[in-house]
Amino acid sequence: MKNNLYSKLSFAVIGAGSGGKAIAGYLALKGYTVNLYNRSIERIKDIKQKGYINLTGCFEGRGPLNLVTNNIERAIKNVDVIMVVLPASAHKFVANKIAPIVTSNQYIVLNPGRTGGALEFKNIISKHNPIKEVCIVEAQTLLFACRELHDVNVKIFGKKNEVKVSALPAIKTNEFIGRINKVFPEFTASKNVLETSFNNIGAMLHPIPTILNCGRIENTHGSFQYYIDGVTPSIASVIEQADYERLMIARKLKVKAISLKEWLSYTYDAHGKTLCEALMNTHGYHGISAPPNMQTRYVFEDVPQSLVPISDMGKHLCINTPTIDSIIQLASIIHNTDYFKYGRKIADMGLDRLSTVDEIIDYVITGQIDTSEEGVVA
Amino acid sequence: MKNNLYSKLSFAVIGAGSGGKAIAGYLALKGYTVNLYNRSIERIKDIKQKGYINLTGCFEGRGPLNLVTNNIERAIKNVDVIMVVLPASAHKFVANKIAPIVTSNQYIVLNPGRTGGALEFKNIISKHNPIKEVCIVEAQTLLFACRELHDVNVKIFGKKNEVKVSALPAIKTNEFIGRINKVFPEFTASKNVLETSFNNIGAMLHPIPTILNCGRIENTHGSFQYYIDGVTPSIASVIEQADYERLMIARKLKVKAISLKEWLSYTYDAHGKTLCEALMNTHGYHGISAPPNMQTRYVFEDVPQSLVPISDMGKHLCINTPTIDSIIQLASIIHNTDYFKYGRKIADMGLDRLSTVDEIIDYVITGQIDTSEEGVVA
Repeated sequence: MKNNLYSKLSFAVIGAGSGGKAIAGYLALKGYTVNLYNRSIERIKDIKQKGYINLTGCFEGRGPLNLVTNNIERAIKNVDVIMVVLPASAHKFVANKIAPIVTSNQYIVLNPGRTGGALEFKNIISKHNPIKEVCIVEAQTLLFACRELHDVNVKIFGKKNEVKVSALPAIKTNEFIGRINKVFPEFTASKNVLETSFNNIGAMLHPIPTILNCGRIENTHGSFQYYIDGVTPSIASVIEQADYERLMIARKLKVKAISLKEWLSYTYDAHGKTLCEALMNTHGYHGISAPPNMQTRYVFEDVPQSLVPISDMGKHLCINTPTIDSIIQLASIIHNTDYFKYGRKIADMGLDRLSTVDEIIDYVITGQIDTSEEGVVA
Repeated sequence: MKNNLYSKLSFAVIGAGSGGKAIAGYLALKGYTVNLYNRSIERIKDIKQKGYINLTGCFEGRGPLNLVTNNIERAIKNVDVIMVVLPASAHKFVANKIAPIVTSNQYIVLNPGRTGGALEFKNIISKHNPIKEVCIVEAQTLLFACRELHDVNVKIFGKKNEVKVSALPAIKTNEFIGRINKVFPEFTASKNVLETSFNNIGAMLHPIPTILNCGRIENTHGSFQYYIDGVTPSIASVIEQADYERLMIARKLKVKAISLKEWLSYTYDAHGKTLCEALMNTHGYHGISAPPNMQTRYVFEDVPQSLVPISDMGKHLCINTPTIDSIIQLASIIHNTDYFKYGRKIADMGLDRLSTVDEIIDYVITGQIDTSEEGVVA
């Protein structure tokens, strides 16, 4: 590990799905040292054998990898940045794996964290070692739009111009951005991880149209356009109500969250009188198919790691989220899993001891729980 | 009004939708005196002009009417039986209209009552006159499968072999069945109105597939088979969970309620390993189209007058109904109406002062609220 600020950063990429392959290939193509880890060796055996990832699309060429492994300890040893590019449902597993071995001068970047990803990660690491200082960075969305192809190939369709990130603790955000800037100039500072977590737009866009098109998905195996045919005025009204609940919580947490409609306008330059109209005017959504069945990440990732933490934060702050809760309930029945129970909750995020908004904000800024009052009482 | 038990009964039919026209035409064809009322004169102007209803299908011929009117007082004056054949959402309006004029020797028959129809009706009449004794009869389902045609014509596709009914108070059920038997031998006694109310199968079959196919209904204007394409395994699992909540409440109320799957087997001789399979094997459901848009009785009748009273009874008895509540919440957003607030609740049914199951059961049997304990305290 190079502690010199001016040396070239080295990376471990955790997860070899399409997103992980794209980031690993991109970094390697740019000449960085990259270790690629995946839990199952099967998924990376071609890459391991050939030693590189081949990019097509916006970026073209071979990215040679330093190490391809299913041994996480070897993957992260001595690297500067650990990029976790996994469905949020895998965060808990990875956090438990790396907790004993991560060092205080490594950055852990969740790309993305969904809602409460960095908080859960830090909480798990703290349970292993309460005094270990770690810097966990949460990205609000994925950097690349990409799709994995056969063998060692991955196609990058697009790269976002800007991705908001925040460190936990937030006092380290600028330091991180300074160090990563040459690699990812797209990363810009968000106020704190509450801001990245409560601007989780996927939480609004994924589960609701899936659940409210559940009959059509199963009856037609998803042969319709997910957004264009699937988001009708009634579905848009349910999304808007869930979005309103999310925004109420964000406001209480004193972070700037933008509505889905504002986000479409900002991100895709898509406008409309109604949310439904704006979605229909989102060029990039045309041609995107619905999932072929209900075993989709739109539910099994976005319900437990996005809607449940939003709902549970609502409960913690006495803000009702009946619309979000309805979707969690229906998803729980459809997947025969109690997502309210197994999803990411306040306790998983280590916030159960913090009863006021100011205590929560203080924690995400400093990474420390202020125990002074407890001290006074003792 | 003929008080002689052996004279021929006379009827008022309230509501001239397809069900009301079918019942009025059927009774008139059988030679009974029938007055037909409808709130809007427009709907009955052809019948008023010609003076009869013409039946086709299972029953054929002209049924001459005694009176066709939009004056409810004239319609019900001196008749023995007032048949209310309306969407349950209109019960409140009709109850308020007839409360001052109905007499204690008239039967009011709700055909059907959905959940809590008779209780709400009686509660409204009691508010007008606390000591007036009335006998309100709740039918569990519609007697006829029918569709109105142009002008004075209505087609009856089928007549059920059995329709369960109960009087409120239940001590009058047998007397009613004895008197109506020659007219409607299909009516058989149910234990009490809790049994007819909590065997409301439409509550399970109507709102859930509509809400969970909401995208497809709006995107295709309902061009798919409602049950056959619309009820997929995931939707069936949501229906089963809601059905389980309904059965838990019925059990607590000590009434026999049968599951939807048992009901399909009993009513249509349709079987299957799963509920989904049994629905697919229900011959009568093939060819039934989905509603063309979300402004459908499947939602605006079945949510406020079926799901809300079930949910509110659950709350009253400390039984959670999270699945039913999810559907009410989504329906409320889609219809921009707070159905939790405006639907039929415990207070509307006059049960808010009755805190135990035994008090509720005593009330539906006797029609009297036992105030002896209050008397003792005073």
